[in-house]
Amino acid sequence: MGKSRLEAFSDGVFAVAITLLAFDLAVPAHAGGHLATELGHEWPQMAAYATSFLIIGIIWINHHAVLALAARVDRPVLIANMALLLPIVTIPFATNLFATYLRAGHDGRVAAAVYSGVMAWMAVTFSVLYRFVVHEDRTHAAVLDRATVRRTTVRFGIGQVFYLALVGIAFVSPVAVLIGQFALAAFYLFDQTGARDLRAGDDDRDEAGR
Amino acid sequence: MGKSRLEAFSDGVFAVAITLLAFDLAVPAHAGGHLATELGHEWPQMAAYATSFLIIGIIWINHHAVLALAARVDRPVLIANMALLLPIVTIPFATNLFATYLRAGHDGRVAAAVYSGVMAWMAVTFSVLYRFVVHEDRTHAAVLDRATVRRTTVRFGIGQVFYLALVGIAFVSPVAVLIGQFALAAFYLFDQTGARDLRAGDDDRDEAGR
Amino acid sequence: MGKSRLEAFSDGVFAVAITLLAFDLAVPAHAGGHLATELGHEWPQMAAYATSFLIIGIIWINHHAVLALAARVDRPVLIANMALLLPIVTIPFATNLFATYLRAGHDGRVAAAVYSGVMAWMAVTFSVLYRFVVHEDRTHAAVLDRATVRRTTVRFGIGQVFYLALVGIAFVSPVAVLIGQFALAAFYLFDQTGARDLRAGDDDRDEAGR
Amino acid sequence: MGKSRLEAFSDGVFAVAITLLAFDLAVPAHAGGHLATELGHEWPQMAAYATSFLIIGIIWINHHAVLALAARVDRPVLIANMALLLPIVTIPFATNLFATYLRAGHDGRVAAAVYSGVMAWMAVTFSVLYRFVVHEDRTHAAVLDRATVRRTTVRFGIGQVFYLALVGIAFVSPVAVLIGQFALAAFYLFDQTGARDLRAGDDDRDEAGR
Repeated sequence: MGKSRLEAFSDGVFAVAITLLAFDLAVPAHAGGHLATELGHEWPQMAAYATSFLIIGIIWINHHAVLALAARVDRPVLIANMALLLPIVTIPFATNLFATYLRAGHDGRVAAAVYSGVMAWMAVTFSVLYRFVVHEDRTHAAVLDRATVRRTTVRFGIGQVFYLALVGIAFVSPVAVLIGQFALAAFYLFDQTGARDLRAGDDDRDEAGR
Repeated sequence: MGKSRLEAFSDGVFAVAITLLAFDLAVPAHAGGHLATELGHEWPQMAAYATSFLIIGIIWINHHAVLALAARVDRPVLIANMALLLPIVTIPFATNLFATYLRAGHDGRVAAAVYSGVMAWMAVTFSVLYRFVVHEDRTHAAVLDRATVRRTTVRFGIGQVFYLALVGIAFVSPVAVLIGQFALAAFYLFDQTGARDLRAGDDDRDEAGR
Repeated sequence: MGKSRLEAFSDGVFAVAITLLAFDLAVPAHAGGHLATELGHEWPQMAAYATSFLIIGIIWINHHAVLALAARVDRPVLIANMALLLPIVTIPFATNLFATYLRAGHDGRVAAAVYSGVMAWMAVTFSVLYRFVVHEDRTHAAVLDRATVRRTTVRFGIGQVFYLALVGIAFVSPVAVLIGQFALAAFYLFDQTGARDLRAGDDDRDEAGR
Repeated sequence: MGKSRLEAFSDGVFAVAITLLAFDLAVPAHAGGHLATELGHEWPQMAAYATSFLIIGIIWINHHAVLALAARVDRPVLIANMALLLPIVTIPFATNLFATYLRAGHDGRVAAAVYSGVMAWMAVTFSVLYRFVVHEDRTHAAVLDRATVRRTTVRFGIGQVFYLALVGIAFVSPVAVLIGQFALAAFYLFDQTGARDLRAGDDDRDEAGR
């Protein structure tokens, strides 16, 4: 019951954040017969928007998988979830900032660093939420063996190293950050092994009751 | 359980996208005693907004019908659903672009093509989601016979031909695109046969348990 | 099941529309030491926003009461619900228009007429949705006796007369429209009799099962 | 059933309001090579946004705890809930106003008073909702003993005194208001005793049935 409401609220935040991304796409004010060209110039906005859409989508899928592990939701989990939602709702701003300054020399590097920083912040808070949820007080032993927790924790740790590396790469090439963030999100999308581990636990639980 | 959260998230995205459509309607800045005339000049915005509202509304109804067929939701379905939500959240931008340039000669044709392109993209991803959901691993045999799946697939295929045709028609007449999109959405609205097939399956399933 | 998803989607639309109302409140750009005065000048926006908040809130409460009567939700109900949501999502635009032009002479009267027109449109579509829901195929006989349906239909009919009257009053006094809309919403808020009728049916149904 | 829909609607409003906060963060228009400095100048916006995020997050957690106590939801509770949602949806506007004028001398004091006023208004309406929910007609005796209600009521009363004090402090120092609001929210976040009381009741109820 408590969990379903936490999910409903989180789903709402994810849904609004992912929809606002596209709301930031600017309609060219005066195209004067060159609308196709004007839209072509907006490729950084389109690319940043698609990348952020993919990132929020993946986090949502993984958020779903993690909360499926929780047998109960208490105040620390609610707070850890809030701590994750803070970077999530910041993503539309960071995306807009990145898209606006992507090709602007030094400013582009600052904007790329802010964008990567928000993503790294999100990765860290996601990992903290995971640690809270899989704490032995909050999961059924049947759902999750400790070996899976260790493997997943290591995998999240490696992900965080990549996210942090992209903050550094921002000062070299903003476009490389865009490509790197997209690749990192796509990697988590197709990471079948990790997904299977989590889902296996999920299925066990479904069989175990409710 | 997993399915209900997928629905909640998707419903949130549909709800935000459909509400943002109207948020793009511009209040005339300085009407100077001619507000009725100024609002009259905004008919392309009103018409595009109403058409997009109808389109998102119909997709939501059909999304509802399709997910009712799924016995279980796994990562491929989650990803196919995300792939559908990407064009959905792009609709407010495409609508605003289309409305802004509808009467602007060559730019109007480009804007109409972008609008039709987003709708065609949505039709294709919807069809992919349907294929994933009705895959024999994910539906109860009792819910859906293969003849219905074949009929529906053909129907979706024909719909996609119309959506693609409207991309071509954009280069002839943006107003024809607006009328065509409205007609296509209205057709899906009143397509009782298709709806009945899906609902029949839905009812069988309700009787079969839960 | 189908009903819960209809409610979730509708709740999402109501929630986004009611929250966007306040998002239209303008922060004065350059107050130059006179912020209190500047905010005081925004009273039409504040008043229109509070009135629309009350209206959307009441519709949501009544939407809730009406859908509680439905034993099943089919495509006609889904479509009637969409027809109601169209004026709902238009309310933030109509509110902003009304607030912007409230004190602008002739334009104020046009804006007030548009605002009242949207509310009348909403009242009519709400009434249509009610007729669809209480149709004998869609409610349990135990839930609702036909005398209650008749009384409620008459009450809705009277409400619609008031809403239409406010469209006419708009051409006399925009401020009277604001007061009238507020009073009409407050009337529906405290209409205990009507509420009790609906809730009684609701309670019967809760006792009758689920 | 009725309660779950009230929660869904409220969660939607909380989710949209909390996500819109960050949507108000302005991307500097022309940074001209000084983006880091420009973003640094936006610290009042960042601080106000983070504070409001924390406040809405805490209210959501407490709203969750309070509604868990309700055995049934009737029209007075629905109306009390609406009365709470009105200040909630006003928070993004108040936050934007506060952030814009925080460093603007006299205007800053007015903006801080408006911000604190909205928070005090929210605290009062929250307290009213609590009183309605814990009324003996609406809670199971098993859920909640009257001593807990008295303790919580006193705690809310003290909170309201602090909120009102911050309205007064606004005329001395807007920055002190920002710090005070943040501290007050953080206090409610870590108020383990109060949380435990409420949760204990919640657990009892879970054990008692459903």
